[in-house]
Amino acid sequence: MTSPIRVTMTGGARGSWRVTRTNQVTGEGLAAVDRLAVVEDGGHDHVAAGRDGISWVLRGYTSNSRYTTAAETAELRAKQADLGRPEATLAALIPIRKSVEWWQLAQDERRAILAEQSRHISIGLEYLPGVARRLYHCRELGEPFDFLTWFEYPPSESGAFERLVDRLRASQEWRYVTRELDIRLIRDR
Amino acid sequence: MTSPIRVTMTGGARGSWRVTRTNQVTGEGLAAVDRLAVVEDGGHDHVAAGRDGISWVLRGYTSNSRYTTAAETAELRAKQADLGRPEATLAALIPIRKSVEWWQLAQDERRAILAEQSRHISIGLEYLPGVARRLYHCRELGEPFDFLTWFEYPPSESGAFERLVDRLRASQEWRYVTRELDIRLIRDR
Repeated sequence: MTSPIRVTMTGGARGSWRVTRTNQVTGEGLAAVDRLAVVEDGGHDHVAAGRDGISWVLRGYTSNSRYTTAAETAELRAKQADLGRPEATLAALIPIRKSVEWWQLAQDERRAILAEQSRHISIGLEYLPGVARRLYHCRELGEPFDFLTWFEYPPSESGAFERLVDRLRASQEWRYVTRELDIRLIRDR
Repeated sequence: MTSPIRVTMTGGARGSWRVTRTNQVTGEGLAAVDRLAVVEDGGHDHVAAGRDGISWVLRGYTSNSRYTTAAETAELRAKQADLGRPEATLAALIPIRKSVEWWQLAQDERRAILAEQSRHISIGLEYLPGVARRLYHCRELGEPFDFLTWFEYPPSESGAFERLVDRLRASQEWRYVTRELDIRLIRDR
């Protein structure tokens, strides 16, 4: 994944993902919606909340890795699954915002909290390839969140996914999370 | 600098910076222009090339630091000067694009090339506070460059600035630069 992929996610009446549950984990929520549409690479540049039954729009982009070492990257690439597997009918959209304190930390300080103390990278590795994952960045776009984290998994991995999310939320890194939603989805179109 | 600052730079007939020299260092150039306007935080969201005498538009945003350690960050903050000093009447806009190979490297590999091998951070420190600097990111915006690097300095620092640029261009890191322009400017409005 070398070229950044732009994404537009719309919450509303349309989309191939049906919302099964929305958990307002930390901070302000978003309006409850029936469906989520995910469109890549500018296909939805024109969409806006308040039209076509759309309640909210979130935008982001993939980027280069920010924390993983060469060894970790090799392990991730060897184990991880692509998005869009037919059997991965469940998904989670977890938008996250982190505090000013987090963003004022230097690179080595953020890496120490995320990787060494919180084991974010190694915990994530344990759940591959069952849980496929993609990270979209959005802090610099003036969006309400800093990241849109996206997960896809088959029903057989539901229990594992709950453990993954619980472990990350219990980590040191999550002390810097000031806003978090957890939207669970099923692909039925 | 914790909240990202968005910037729009327009090359054309208007702007408080007059172009004194444009050096097409590597790869494709941009149309020659008389003036550059720099507007922050969405003030110029509506501008477009081909209107109001504008030949080209470049956009970017500041972000958190990506490579500097806590110790380096402290040294940078202690030494660096703000933009907009009255005596800093000269500026350079150096837009840069890096190769696919660069962006495929892991965080530790990029840090090793940029900091340990190329001494980018420590070389930059030597020229503070005379040369003030700001880095705008734009790779994820679908822009023609990955970074817009911006420097401001008084005429007395011109020689030092040339040495800074020469040293960076001679570094290992610059082997990954596939497109680079160097636009020199004087503030006369």
